[in-house]
Amino acid sequence: MRRLLDSAVPSPHAGFHAVHAVPVAAEGDDGNGLLVRVRTRGAAPLRAHLRSEPDNEERLVALEPGELRDGWRDWSARLTPVGHDSVTRYAFRFVFATEQRWLAQDGLHPVMPSVDVHFRHVAGYRPAAWVWDQVVYQVFPDRFRDGDPDSNVRSDAYPYGGQGVVARAWDELPTRGMGAREFFGGDLDGVREALPYLEDLGASTLYLNPIFTSPSSHKYDTVDFDRVDPHLGGDAAFERLVEALRARGMRVILDAVVNHTSERHPWFGKPPETAAAAAPVVADAGAPADAGAPAGAYASADSPTRDHYVFDDSGDPDSYRGWAGVRTLPVLDFASAGVRDKVYAGDDAVLRRWLRPPWRIDGWRLDVIHMLGEGPGALHNHRHVRAIRRAIREERDDAYVLGEHFFEATPWLQGDQEDGAMNYAGFLRPMLAFWAGVDFRGDPAPIDARDLDDWLTGVRARLPFPIQLSQLNLLDSHDVPRFLTRVGGDVAALAAAAHALFTYVGVPSVYYGDEIGLEGGEDPDCRRPFPWDETRWDAGLRATYRALAHLRRRAPPLARGRYETLAAHGDVFAFARELGGDATITIIHRGSSARAVTLPAWATGVAGPWTDALRGTRYDAGDHVTLTLPPRSGTVLVSDPAWLAPVS
Amino acid sequence: MRRLLDSAVPSPHAGFHAVHAVPVAAEGDDGNGLLVRVRTRGAAPLRAHLRSEPDNEERLVALEPGELRDGWRDWSARLTPVGHDSVTRYAFRFVFATEQRWLAQDGLHPVMPSVDVHFRHVAGYRPAAWVWDQVVYQVFPDRFRDGDPDSNVRSDAYPYGGQGVVARAWDELPTRGMGAREFFGGDLDGVREALPYLEDLGASTLYLNPIFTSPSSHKYDTVDFDRVDPHLGGDAAFERLVEALRARGMRVILDAVVNHTSERHPWFGKPPETAAAAAPVVADAGAPADAGAPAGAYASADSPTRDHYVFDDSGDPDSYRGWAGVRTLPVLDFASAGVRDKVYAGDDAVLRRWLRPPWRIDGWRLDVIHMLGEGPGALHNHRHVRAIRRAIREERDDAYVLGEHFFEATPWLQGDQEDGAMNYAGFLRPMLAFWAGVDFRGDPAPIDARDLDDWLTGVRARLPFPIQLSQLNLLDSHDVPRFLTRVGGDVAALAAAAHALFTYVGVPSVYYGDEIGLEGGEDPDCRRPFPWDETRWDAGLRATYRALAHLRRRAPPLARGRYETLAAHGDVFAFARELGGDATITIIHRGSSARAVTLPAWATGVAGPWTDALRGTRYDAGDHVTLTLPPRSGTVLVSDPAWLAPVS
Repeated sequence: MRRLLDSAVPSPHAGFHAVHAVPVAAEGDDGNGLLVRVRTRGAAPLRAHLRSEPDNEERLVALEPGELRDGWRDWSARLTPVGHDSVTRYAFRFVFATEQRWLAQDGLHPVMPSVDVHFRHVAGYRPAAWVWDQVVYQVFPDRFRDGDPDSNVRSDAYPYGGQGVVARAWDELPTRGMGAREFFGGDLDGVREALPYLEDLGASTLYLNPIFTSPSSHKYDTVDFDRVDPHLGGDAAFERLVEALRARGMRVILDAVVNHTSERHPWFGKPPETAAAAAPVVADAGAPADAGAPAGAYASADSPTRDHYVFDDSGDPDSYRGWAGVRTLPVLDFASAGVRDKVYAGDDAVLRRWLRPPWRIDGWRLDVIHMLGEGPGALHNHRHVRAIRRAIREERDDAYVLGEHFFEATPWLQGDQEDGAMNYAGFLRPMLAFWAGVDFRGDPAPIDARDLDDWLTGVRARLPFPIQLSQLNLLDSHDVPRFLTRVGGDVAALAAAAHALFTYVGVPSVYYGDEIGLEGGEDPDCRRPFPWDETRWDAGLRATYRALAHLRRRAPPLARGRYETLAAHGDVFAFARELGGDATITIIHRGSSARAVTLPAWATGVAGPWTDALRGTRYDAGDHVTLTLPPRSGTVLVSDPAWLAPVS
Repeated sequence: MRRLLDSAVPSPHAGFHAVHAVPVAAEGDDGNGLLVRVRTRGAAPLRAHLRSEPDNEERLVALEPGELRDGWRDWSARLTPVGHDSVTRYAFRFVFATEQRWLAQDGLHPVMPSVDVHFRHVAGYRPAAWVWDQVVYQVFPDRFRDGDPDSNVRSDAYPYGGQGVVARAWDELPTRGMGAREFFGGDLDGVREALPYLEDLGASTLYLNPIFTSPSSHKYDTVDFDRVDPHLGGDAAFERLVEALRARGMRVILDAVVNHTSERHPWFGKPPETAAAAAPVVADAGAPADAGAPAGAYASADSPTRDHYVFDDSGDPDSYRGWAGVRTLPVLDFASAGVRDKVYAGDDAVLRRWLRPPWRIDGWRLDVIHMLGEGPGALHNHRHVRAIRRAIREERDDAYVLGEHFFEATPWLQGDQEDGAMNYAGFLRPMLAFWAGVDFRGDPAPIDARDLDDWLTGVRARLPFPIQLSQLNLLDSHDVPRFLTRVGGDVAALAAAAHALFTYVGVPSVYYGDEIGLEGGEDPDCRRPFPWDETRWDAGLRATYRALAHLRRRAPPLARGRYETLAAHGDVFAFARELGGDATITIIHRGSSARAVTLPAWATGVAGPWTDALRGTRYDAGDHVTLTLPPRSGTVLVSDPAWLAPVS
């Protein structure tokens, strides 16, 4: 029963509005609690309170009013973190003569909202704050750029899934059913060569799909966590890439696939399809399954690594549990001390060593992290994810811990586990339903802007603010069809959605090729090689991405600013970001004809004037801004035109 | 973004509707998972799925369609409980040519709703199923009936809070500021004498406010957990009462105040205000602080019970922590093994012994249960509440574990802790806002029927269904002003609200005297003596309560039936309960003039005809029922007039 701003407040002069610039991290926490502030405009409340639940019981503390300035009044109170939980929840209560309004993380309510949507302060949480300033670019290494053709996989070099691997030409398309065993030759030297392109685009952090040694092209079936795959250039190419990134002030996040391994991993040790055929991969990896090595879990019930995997009691080696039933991906059992040591606990654990020199990666993207656990399922998952976080942060205290979650990830995002999730649940899926009218499966799921707002807000409102800022927003990835393909090739729709991608709460992530109009359906089609022939690029789309990416990095409200929905009706959705007296306003318009809208710009707390970031149009200062939205368009207005200095 | 039935479905023939008769307890669980069923009407889906998250990952299982009967189709699928949590969440997905609908516990959605509102199945949860059939009557013992004047507290018999206790005449009113030290003489023999009255009214279970030995009239400051207060008649009177209840097939729930004790409890041992004055209470209790007894926690840092309470390190005896800062109520520290043993763990623990013969009470109402914990706050609260549940259920495997929570109690109501809460959060507060337009504090908080529905639904949707059925619904209690007083003495409003009380999901609880129109403001005024002079009763109101209470006990859908909102607009709120082909429809109307409404009775799945339970009016069978609502009224329609047999 939250009230949308524009329906709750017929006029800024008559109504009441309240906003809370949520403190990030330990900001404002002086050891005696957190100083929280809220600003109000419009009707003056008779009483104003900060609500929290120390000892699980309600406590209301009077808010201290500050001076009235430009129609806004600041209020503050000290919040005492609860002692029994790391998360302290709070909300604001304003009492008027005939009604009351509560401000929670999802907006204003006529009565006390659920604690689910209260603001959340996490004691002692240290965000990976650097990530807020990033534009992430996701690369699927085999498909981005081939820097060293000599390292390419050759056709029939070894068998995979009973058939030989296949080398493809760069201008071919991926073939359905061939996802794992066809190779295009992309590698890390290719990525390194492309850094000027990425920097020009405005990208600042690379997220690389798996690079550790694996016989497949997707490399989600690891055979050696300690070596970069030789076909991607091996350790040396990765070291060169890391050095080149560092020289440009860029960062890198790697993909950690530790829920399961390849059936060919020495820990598991399923015999190669043919001994000779397997040699090229395993030998390159420097971890040959030689005669002196202990037998793997599959080979023997007495194997020292038998407890690393989940077998039933029958003694049958084929009774092992595979990820999602896939036989080639035996699931690791985190009940095993050996697994815990090798993955996160031990000194040489996979998740620790790549955070150290010479690589010093900046974060881990944890594949299917919610499924990891003890035995065949996700038992004690949170316990292990907490331990994974601790291990990662022991090595590098600002490393970004990113989880892969196709659905709601609220329990993993409360400060004790992940810094952020790949935001399928709270960004991609709502945007897909709004723009393409479909769900993940491509089934019809049309929503309007009000539904879109409810959905985005529902996910956001359950997270501490620093974690909202750390969510990795995306429109597509290696696992789902390209957004452009979902909208039937409608470039205007993608460009509009990109306006939200770069300005919504969280870190924008661009899947390689989206920016030049690369299309692609379900996996493996969404993993087409990047066309380096510029004549095949959509130059206008790329210009939009480039302008938005650079704006994102220059405008502080986009990295750290509070969020507010300004309009959500039918085809029009508008929101603001505000920080320290500066603001942006984003409007996306789905309709197929131009449309005039008037927005309550006053609610940003910034007077204006406003400048259209991509079109240059100026709008006068005032409580409202009226503009005409082109059909199927995105618009970003900014309060500070200095953010728009030309990028050359 | 859930869709209300009447807005989502313009016509039952064109639209789509789905309902799920949620399984209770282990019903339907054959060890191979739970067989879940859903019924649909209207447009036929192209695909239908049961969604759950084994291993925290989405699984969709196709629903098997059954035959079409009377326009409804049954669908079923087997739900496999998750292995990593006791709670399995699920929802239903229906795909149509141009949209989809999801059924979750809060209704229909256009896209997948949050797991927060998914249906919840709790593996191994055993409800106190008997409580579903009860009408509870809450008695504040000092104020209900004086059965034995000889046991009454005499004025100045002993000091309390620095002044003498005061005996009041039955027809006096409680005096502000005197709450704890004024006594009217009510006792357990009085309650026993009143059992015919209660049985006639339709009450079947007594909830007694604290009866253990305590110097105050409210007895929330216990000095002996093992003895019934002599001024209430002592152990003997309680045994007589229990026997009389049992003879009538009635039940009893006691109030467990184990978060803190009186400062005069021997464990704490603060010296009596005057040694002589304290004797009457402590001696009667049979636990005199005689010279041979060990010194209490207050008297000595070396006391064997020092660790039972929370002192700081200063050695200052006055550094102890009092409940909500109240000095007379030192908080127990559940970090102490001695406290745990005495309260729940030991063989003679308070919470165990009263569940045994000769008393065999039927349940405990746990006072401020969410505040209990280790040290000064609520640290490890859930751990102790889980242990409390286990201890109680070890003694009696169907005992009702009822928590006191003024606010949201979702975390305590997931099957591992409480069976139900005093439903301030999910019933009293919403009804108060709707009918009186105020919140707990009496501040304005007006809401309309749509808000009311959102609020009720928001609380309900987060609970497993058997726990929804076990919530203790109430309109007021010893801790808040009487509902009748909140609505300014408007008996029609109370009578209307009572229609919801007796028919909404959960167990109705009547605070003594509400049924005859007893008024009362903030504590202690809400604890007025019950007027046994019938000329002071509102006979019409009592007849309404009596009819509703008996209906509640006769109509199975009211005890165990699924819930569905039929209308929620402005002043009109209507909902149905349905079970096995029978149903009730409740309508409350807040408006001050009569009003005609048409309700989608078809959504109950029951064809009708319908009978107005209190007025006798008959309504024909049909998809819709149209009726005229009197001003400020409640109405209950029933599908089976046999439930209305006259109560004599």
